[in-house]
Amino acid sequence: MKGTFYGVGVGPGDPELLTLKAVRLLGAADAIIAPYSKKKGTGCAALAIVRDRLSPGAEVYELPIPRAYDEEKVEAASQAIIELLDSGKLTVFISRGDPMLYSKYMHIARRLEERGYPVETVPGVVSFTAAACRAGFPLADEEESITIVPVDDEASNIEAALRKSESVVLLKVHKNLDRIIDLLEQHGFHKQAVLISRCGMSGELIESDLEKLRGQKLTYLSTILAKKHIPAGP
Amino acid sequence: MKGTFYGVGVGPGDPELLTLKAVRLLGAADAIIAPYSKKKGTGCAALAIVRDRLSPGAEVYELPIPRAYDEEKVEAASQAIIELLDSGKLTVFISRGDPMLYSKYMHIARRLEERGYPVETVPGVVSFTAAACRAGFPLADEEESITIVPVDDEASNIEAALRKSESVVLLKVHKNLDRIIDLLEQHGFHKQAVLISRCGMSGELIESDLEKLRGQKLTYLSTILAKKHIPAGP
Repeated sequence: MKGTFYGVGVGPGDPELLTLKAVRLLGAADAIIAPYSKKKGTGCAALAIVRDRLSPGAEVYELPIPRAYDEEKVEAASQAIIELLDSGKLTVFISRGDPMLYSKYMHIARRLEERGYPVETVPGVVSFTAAACRAGFPLADEEESITIVPVDDEASNIEAALRKSESVVLLKVHKNLDRIIDLLEQHGFHKQAVLISRCGMSGELIESDLEKLRGQKLTYLSTILAKKHIPAGP
Repeated sequence: MKGTFYGVGVGPGDPELLTLKAVRLLGAADAIIAPYSKKKGTGCAALAIVRDRLSPGAEVYELPIPRAYDEEKVEAASQAIIELLDSGKLTVFISRGDPMLYSKYMHIARRLEERGYPVETVPGVVSFTAAACRAGFPLADEEESITIVPVDDEASNIEAALRKSESVVLLKVHKNLDRIIDLLEQHGFHKQAVLISRCGMSGELIESDLEKLRGQKLTYLSTILAKKHIPAGP
């Protein structure tokens, strides 16, 4: 019988936002798969969150899996995981936030499933609701729609969201912040907006006057939450 | 000094998806505010999730707060909470999922803040990532955007999302299921789709062939996750 492969969301950063199920699996795991992106050399963000919850005997395997899909790296990581599963180890892949949202986990899980390994995936708290709670910013109510946009290099993929949604979540706003602020103003999203950078971590920034942010250098852990401002009538 | 008002997300339904922080606050609380919608007479869904985590001395206040904003009910609930805070009780409002996403909590929290009470909001696991994990359905990768749409009574608010997003989350699909399936087909979202009803609870349904669902009666805890199908090239 093939061993189950577990994927566990470990939340946005605060170890107290781990779920009970995540804590149970992390404490029982023989092997922890900690993905990291070699290019940035920043190590595995998820690992810092779970460090204190691992059993003393757990072995940590830091595997290089780039954020962009890379066939070769995904295959190599999958092979390493298969060896662990075949040797009877309880193996847990950790993802920051939730495993089904912008995580490298999804490609690995699909590959393991294709080869007949049972897969169980445990959801985690996502970064943008954690940011909304921290900033006291209601994301959406009743029948409002929300669009989540990981901002691309030219910030060209934001406008469609601003035209059709009442509420937007813009992820990775560090690269084109001034351009993004321009677009939010043009579409009436600047009066109900907040930027949260390094939510719940050292160097945290929460700013609801976007004008003050122009020209600032931020880390990629920066998110803008914004809602279309409806002027009071008549 | 005014007592802090806590809002706590208790996740989608499985008590093991509570966060450590939620468990700590629930165990310490003197008063639990459990909102319910009188109209439906279904009681408070959040309360069922936390029942086993409350300290024996905790008092539960089930307050009628309709899903749609109701000035009078929000004011009455706020007054009741203010009395608890002023008498020194550690008071926790529980929200299914996350407090900043489609929760009655937001209106109460704003009102308490306006009156000078410190507010702390704790995020929870949202229902749609829990559904995605359960169904093994990747929601979005790399630079894909996602739109979350609570389907309205005529299912008229879906098309804008289908035109502009790579990935959609349709909440409350129980009312116009056949019409919703038609729209997903028209816009090429039916080949990568899954419906999850009563995720992780008794009577759970997971179905990726939407055609099989036509004419079925489902509860409002039904969500469709769908991605635009890109046909393989020539």
